Amino acid sequence: MDDVKAPARKRFRTDTVSGIVGYRLRRAQMHVFQQFNLHFAEFDLRPAEFSVLALIADNPGSKQTEIAHALGIKRANFVALISGLDARGLTERRLLAGDRRSHALFLTALGARTMTKLSKAQADFEARWVAKLGGREARDQLLVLLDRLVAKD
Amino acid sequence: MDDVKAPARKRFRTDTVSGIVGYRLRRAQMHVFQQFNLHFAEFDLRPAEFSVLALIADNPGSKQTEIAHALGIKRANFVALISGLDARGLTERRLLAGDRRSHALFLTALGARTMTKLSKAQADFEARWVAKLGGREARDQLLVLLDRLVAKD
Repeated sequence: MDDVKAPARKRFRTDTVSGIVGYRLRRAQMHVFQQFNLHFAEFDLRPAEFSVLALIADNPGSKQTEIAHALGIKRANFVALISGLDARGLTERRLLAGDRRSHALFLTALGARTMTKLSKAQADFEARWVAKLGGREARDQLLVLLDRLVAKD
Repeated sequence: MDDVKAPARKRFRTDTVSGIVGYRLRRAQMHVFQQFNLHFAEFDLRPAEFSVLALIADNPGSKQTEIAHALGIKRANFVALISGLDARGLTERRLLAGDRRSHALFLTALGARTMTKLSKAQADFEARWVAKLGGREARDQLLVLLDRLVAKD
């Protein structure tokens, strides 16, 4: 760690990384998630927790593996996440009859009431991004392009 | 945790989360990053580490804060990341004369050679995504839409 003079430079160059789809995706995703955390601050829920609640609401009684798979979350991370929601009284795990190793996931009454509020907050939040994108058509175009990235070859 | 019968259900519904821009962005970003890890396995580098090397290559002598800011990485996380690259002999931090609290970042000779190989691997990797998206025009369209999400209101 020798002392050096700061090299004379014009401006900070980001051209290489800026040309990379993955880098741009990550920047956009981080921005949307940071805004999510602000918008949902009163609920104290991260995006993945919101998604878990929404998936359980749409699929009461689903197995942990189904939700984890839908979110692309590793099993260990999912267990930590659902344990947190359980501890807050938003979800509950019940043993499935005839399959003692599987838990069925449900929203509690509190979880269902919270989900109703979350859905309203989410609708507002989503409307902001649709507006920023330039309308529903642009939003749909974005989703089509994102789908192509994820599609099997 | 009472025993319950698995509720009769048709199929696992993801409509709610699938309609959310943030969820779809995250799924696409995770997919591209997972593929990055496979494609760059021989280098044992995560996407953020690649970006740091590319940014230092483009901006030799930049400060840690500049790189961290460009990547949207918190200072503590960035210090851990750059320490790892230092330990592997890819980067080095030098104290700036006249500013004893700032480090200037450089690639080592090994780092520069590695970066040359990485750039080739990155070009192949990027070409795959451009092809999946349907060509350069579709890629540019995606970048425009991602920019709109990140743009200041």
